Amino acid sequence: MPGRPALPDYDVVLTVRNPQRPGMIGRLLGLVGDLGALVGDIETRYIGRDHFVRDVTLSVFDEEHLEEVLAAIRTDTDTVIVDVKDLVFERHAGGKIRTVRTTEVERLEDLRTIYTPGVARVCRAIQKDPALARQYTAVGRTVGIFTNGTRVLGLGNIGALASLPVMEGKSVLYDRFVGLGAVPIVIDETDPEAFVDTVCRIAPSFGGIHLEDIRTPDCFWIEDELIRRLPQPVMHDDQHGTATVLLAAVLSALRHTGREGRRDLVCAQVGLGAAGLAIARLLLDAGFEVVGVDPGEDARRRLEARGGRTASLEGAAAEADILIATTGVIGLITPELVRPGQIVLALSNPVPEITPEAALAAGAAFAADGRSVNNALAFPGLFKAALDVGAPAITSAMKVAAAEAISALAPDEELVPSPFHPDVHEHVIKAVRAAASV
Amino acid sequence: MPGRPALPDYDVVLTVRNPQRPGMIGRLLGLVGDLGALVGDIETRYIGRDHFVRDVTLSVFDEEHLEEVLAAIRTDTDTVIVDVKDLVFERHAGGKIRTVRTTEVERLEDLRTIYTPGVARVCRAIQKDPALARQYTAVGRTVGIFTNGTRVLGLGNIGALASLPVMEGKSVLYDRFVGLGAVPIVIDETDPEAFVDTVCRIAPSFGGIHLEDIRTPDCFWIEDELIRRLPQPVMHDDQHGTATVLLAAVLSALRHTGREGRRDLVCAQVGLGAAGLAIARLLLDAGFEVVGVDPGEDARRRLEARGGRTASLEGAAAEADILIATTGVIGLITPELVRPGQIVLALSNPVPEITPEAALAAGAAFAADGRSVNNALAFPGLFKAALDVGAPAITSAMKVAAAEAISALAPDEELVPSPFHPDVHEHVIKAVRAAASV
Repeated sequence: MPGRPALPDYDVVLTVRNPQRPGMIGRLLGLVGDLGALVGDIETRYIGRDHFVRDVTLSVFDEEHLEEVLAAIRTDTDTVIVDVKDLVFERHAGGKIRTVRTTEVERLEDLRTIYTPGVARVCRAIQKDPALARQYTAVGRTVGIFTNGTRVLGLGNIGALASLPVMEGKSVLYDRFVGLGAVPIVIDETDPEAFVDTVCRIAPSFGGIHLEDIRTPDCFWIEDELIRRLPQPVMHDDQHGTATVLLAAVLSALRHTGREGRRDLVCAQVGLGAAGLAIARLLLDAGFEVVGVDPGEDARRRLEARGGRTASLEGAAAEADILIATTGVIGLITPELVRPGQIVLALSNPVPEITPEAALAAGAAFAADGRSVNNALAFPGLFKAALDVGAPAITSAMKVAAAEAISALAPDEELVPSPFHPDVHEHVIKAVRAAASV
Repeated sequence: MPGRPALPDYDVVLTVRNPQRPGMIGRLLGLVGDLGALVGDIETRYIGRDHFVRDVTLSVFDEEHLEEVLAAIRTDTDTVIVDVKDLVFERHAGGKIRTVRTTEVERLEDLRTIYTPGVARVCRAIQKDPALARQYTAVGRTVGIFTNGTRVLGLGNIGALASLPVMEGKSVLYDRFVGLGAVPIVIDETDPEAFVDTVCRIAPSFGGIHLEDIRTPDCFWIEDELIRRLPQPVMHDDQHGTATVLLAAVLSALRHTGREGRRDLVCAQVGLGAAGLAIARLLLDAGFEVVGVDPGEDARRRLEARGGRTASLEGAAAEADILIATTGVIGLITPELVRPGQIVLALSNPVPEITPEAALAAGAAFAADGRSVNNALAFPGLFKAALDVGAPAITSAMKVAAAEAISALAPDEELVPSPFHPDVHEHVIKAVRAAASV
């Protein structure tokens, strides 16, 4: 998606050396501030006879902006730049995950138990009763994260290997938030049928199948086919994880505008890509009336096949109580389209279809952009609960339950809690487990 | 492989309740000993007014033997059996491995670095230069362990899912011995071409490809094809891990019989299955003359294609300085076949082709069975070294170097050290790294 983000988000650490004179560091920070960079932590590394060495964390917009800042420091100050460290690359060195043992192995006797000859008995038991694999192997606590790298973040089709850092990131979140093991599997194959065959062949290795960053429309067929062919839960996070968090946001917005519990409302979903269509479907399943907007005929037909109406942008906006946009088109929602009292969620990153300020000025009762809506709230708990109870699928009821649990913990004026909220994942797991058992 | 093992190896813990009278426990242990069970740890759990409760660890031969022992205790003693716990299943509960984060994630800022938006820069860098994946993802420290479950341990074709406990066991050993992450991937597909295609499609997820428990002859074509098609090291452990440890055993046996460093010797390899053929090939590469024995024409042709001779069992045994057997046929090597001064390694488990005692009585200078030859000595260090230096393959030179390092640490009269030897894996890694860089 085009456009500079609202705030600089490219973090670097400069190691700088200053003469020991008053005003040096102030001059440096003033200069970088004037150039639009944000200053983070400052740590003194060394105090010499006549100089300081400090680590200064800066957030800039991009590499070009960084070069501009560095050039200005070199030209306009007495500061010597000793080193420039890229925090992102430092944190990625060696990767972000590892597969480790959960049982101690210190003696030959341990080997005889967890490996041959003892392990043969466990194998035979599973051969006789495959359901025992959930109990005596790690599959019951393991999700496979599958992608072909055809639509990664805002980067497009970058291929399987280059998408691995994102998949490792998801794995980190599974571990951190719900204690599930998650294994990134990048599939070097863009053909949807070959992709599905590959996942099916290795699917016994995993209790849950998490799909990620697959281009539209392939992602629809791939998910449907895997759900049809596999016995374990399958979910494309870009569709349903996003939809779950967005439903939570809608529920919170209704509460903040005094319409808690209302379902007799019209939602306009502008943009019926992977996320948009899934949002529209989940809103329908949650009981709302949904009008979809998209220039693509296929996209509109997909929503209609699921029981939604479609309309023009003007028509949908005019009748919507809740106006949601996931188009990536900056400025698509003009102030004239906003109806007084409407809830406006314009979610495209880094720049939304209409800023919250403009929407509120045009009469919206509540407005937000996509910054506060974080996928990490939903997928970890959804899969953890599904695996805990051995659910064969992640149903709409489970997603709605997750959305309600997430929304219930949103602070005043916010749509969702932080993914670091101490209770949110436990609450999601509990709610989803209950919904799965119905 | 048929036959009861030499010693009972099915471990259980009985929780027993005895009247508080002298002689009770002695009577119990005497009885189980008479029935052929071995007694391990005994732990007192509870001392009541008039009784003891104890946990007694027993090793029996199999389930039938266990039932026999339990029935005898019930009939012939005053002991009440409160509980019977199967140690193997207890140790397997929940599986043996988990994928965890190696980076801390405690604040939203951490998410911005290891996930979006920061991660996008790492993705772009890898897209531009794929070699960076080794540095900024976990692939450089991760092995995929692949099987289709067609020849698991001595169990035969038990299928993909049922083989998972063995693959998790291998993963535990990678973590424990060399700190590599290893991910079990069971492929529900017995067709070799489909197997190879599947591995190739997901291969970018892994720095090394470890093949395991694939039936003969499929394993030969699968390994050759994967080596040809993939840029990273590929190794079928049942072939080359076993061969490496066996070469180490041969080198130790030569040392123990005063022939250290000699290569002008004839090795007879009896049995040219997956392990046997690989042993023969590695012995050839290490400089020995090799004569293979196998009833199968295909098997013999495979060895001849690699530069080995073949002969009858009698012919090969008559000229061999070192006689190795990996046939699974109990008693195949009769004392008449043993030549005075020969080294005899009869490796089939649980019962060898000739017992060491019988071979020595027939004039062998040194004899051993397969109990002391443990695969876990070789594969962890081989892959760790290959990944460390970015080697594209695991070559014969690397396997020979590993064998020499393993043999060098074997204690007097033993063929190889314990896999828990404090230095063995470090020595293997060092030797293999050096051999890889030549």
